[in-house]
Amino acid sequence: MKVLVIGGDGYCGWATALHLSNRGYDVAILDSLARRHWDDKLGVGTLTPIAPIQKRIQRWYELTGKKIELFIGDITNYDFLIKSFRKFEPESIVHFGEQRSAPYSMIDREHSVFTQVNNVVGTFIFLYAFGDEFPDSLLVKLGTMGEYGTPNIDIEEGYIEIEHNGRKDVLPYPKQPGSFYHLSKVHDSHNIHFACQIWGIPATDLNQGVVYGVLTEETGMDELLINRLDYDGVFGTALNRFCIQAATGHPLTVYGKGGQTRAFLDIRDTVRCMELAITNPANEGEFRVFNQFTELFSINDLAHMVQKAGDTIGLKIAVDNIENPRVELEEHYFNAKNTNLLDLGLQPHYLSDSLLDSLLNFATKYKDRVDAQQILPTVSWRR
Amino acid sequence: MKVLVIGGDGYCGWATALHLSNRGYDVAILDSLARRHWDDKLGVGTLTPIAPIQKRIQRWYELTGKKIELFIGDITNYDFLIKSFRKFEPESIVHFGEQRSAPYSMIDREHSVFTQVNNVVGTFIFLYAFGDEFPDSLLVKLGTMGEYGTPNIDIEEGYIEIEHNGRKDVLPYPKQPGSFYHLSKVHDSHNIHFACQIWGIPATDLNQGVVYGVLTEETGMDELLINRLDYDGVFGTALNRFCIQAATGHPLTVYGKGGQTRAFLDIRDTVRCMELAITNPANEGEFRVFNQFTELFSINDLAHMVQKAGDTIGLKIAVDNIENPRVELEEHYFNAKNTNLLDLGLQPHYLSDSLLDSLLNFATKYKDRVDAQQILPTVSWRR
Repeated sequence: MKVLVIGGDGYCGWATALHLSNRGYDVAILDSLARRHWDDKLGVGTLTPIAPIQKRIQRWYELTGKKIELFIGDITNYDFLIKSFRKFEPESIVHFGEQRSAPYSMIDREHSVFTQVNNVVGTFIFLYAFGDEFPDSLLVKLGTMGEYGTPNIDIEEGYIEIEHNGRKDVLPYPKQPGSFYHLSKVHDSHNIHFACQIWGIPATDLNQGVVYGVLTEETGMDELLINRLDYDGVFGTALNRFCIQAATGHPLTVYGKGGQTRAFLDIRDTVRCMELAITNPANEGEFRVFNQFTELFSINDLAHMVQKAGDTIGLKIAVDNIENPRVELEEHYFNAKNTNLLDLGLQPHYLSDSLLDSLLNFATKYKDRVDAQQILPTVSWRR
Repeated sequence: MKVLVIGGDGYCGWATALHLSNRGYDVAILDSLARRHWDDKLGVGTLTPIAPIQKRIQRWYELTGKKIELFIGDITNYDFLIKSFRKFEPESIVHFGEQRSAPYSMIDREHSVFTQVNNVVGTFIFLYAFGDEFPDSLLVKLGTMGEYGTPNIDIEEGYIEIEHNGRKDVLPYPKQPGSFYHLSKVHDSHNIHFACQIWGIPATDLNQGVVYGVLTEETGMDELLINRLDYDGVFGTALNRFCIQAATGHPLTVYGKGGQTRAFLDIRDTVRCMELAITNPANEGEFRVFNQFTELFSINDLAHMVQKAGDTIGLKIAVDNIENPRVELEEHYFNAKNTNLLDLGLQPHYLSDSLLDSLLNFATKYKDRVDAQQILPTVSWRR
């Protein structure tokens, strides 16, 4: 099966492209390389030294004999997108091609507007290209668990049955996103849902938790295939950032009280979920939602787990509760369902087993590349 | 109180600006005049001959001695918007300034993307201008009842208490919008809700039904003050369109089975609701939602009421069930709440009383201006 990975030069996209290629899919990557450009402009960088996309793909071919076609361009450009579709003729399209950082979207007006326009219009153009000429292809789109916010009831997978005044309906699960980035994903979900209804597109929206880890079977094959690992205040996510702080002797920066609970998964499960979503396709016109995560942790849980794991390799790790730059509940109920992907056969990697192998050891290996000035949060949700 | 009416050259905006001015508010209008430009490009036009905005305002001053300041420009331009805010120093801002037609948003890719970018970015820029320098002003934003779609349970006003697995929460009411335009309003609602949370803006989102009628106390004072009345397949809404069809001997064009039920209100109630929303403000940081309509009708109900009213003035009116250009349920449950504005003192005008005065007689008066080629729908939701 031909699979086009949009955003295939990014953290989840690169690992997914290699995994699918390794599993025998005919993979192409489409990417604007915008993320490398944003890193440059913000003066931040991945802990791990990532190679140029052309060299990554070349090395993959040398090692495995598997070709990955490359399309460099922006999905907000319809002409570019449809030309790429026509050349590759994808049967499945996995869409990671969005600005994916909440702090980035909160920097200022320009970054908020950019994030929403880029993400919403990119997905829009993409839906039209799909509907115009590839209506039978499968669409797999990355959403986020952050779309749901922190409701005081259980979070279901995309929909909830509501009984109200003696009547019932199954409706889209109410969303309470917590940044202009998360809002862009909610807008996408609504737009795609409607496109499925009117054009019959089969779509799967994967509401992914926070991804951690850097090692997959494929990216570990050679240093030229290494994946990115962000630890800065804009692109670094909680757990990855903690491990790099631990490795460099920086206190773990817990925002506020640390009772914020979120959904997490290992990047090795991300790539497997992608394969499960395309091999078990949605039906024509169906907007299917999976919650893509394996475990729930509070930020304090994570800090304690990193401390404990660090202990076993001789790291003394402090924890700092710093002022929370975000506007969010710091103590709340959080219980989200994730049975859809498990039912399709996902076999989770658990954090307790992965922490040392895929994170702390990597962080320690590359700790000399850390720029300590990038670690603290620089973007506030408040004025 | 100083009230800035964004979109004050439009159908609801113009009537609102005059009403508030007449009631003693210090009113300014901010408008890009984009709607007049879109009419020109589509080759459609209002039934009633509307004067240029400058002449309208001049005539209002001559008749009443009340000045309305005018700012011509686009709210997606932050510099223009903030300069206008600084000059007028609004205490309340009523925001009608969006592309408001579902068919327009479904014409093609360019129009879909334009509608979402224009509406979402306009509101975004507006929120920043608000939050940057006028955080204590009141925001009143026009949404639409079409954000809710047609759920099989009662529609509440913006929020719903959900009991699920033994726990309860009050969450944003799930949205199922039926066009790329309606989606843009859902996106706005989510963005504004979040801006209220993080910046403390007091906002009221008015989910308005389909507005009918053309006559208000103020617009009826002089022909130079006349309001627009659209009957074309793109901007004409069901009831206004039916009355103009009736006046010109064109069969009423019911889309599909006609069981589609929607919420309606007289434009005289629209202008009153605006005043109620600004004189009974939301609290700091509150995202308050009112459903703004007075009655529910199916499309078939409307057709029959127009037939019956036409009978009394000698019009013989046929009804055609034409192929539905939209993708929507044609028979469904629909029951929406609207007590918030009634509790604040809204005294509804009912359709049965308004149909002849504010619509059929107007349509008859101007029927020679009708271009029959504009009447039928030209935009399909399908491919």
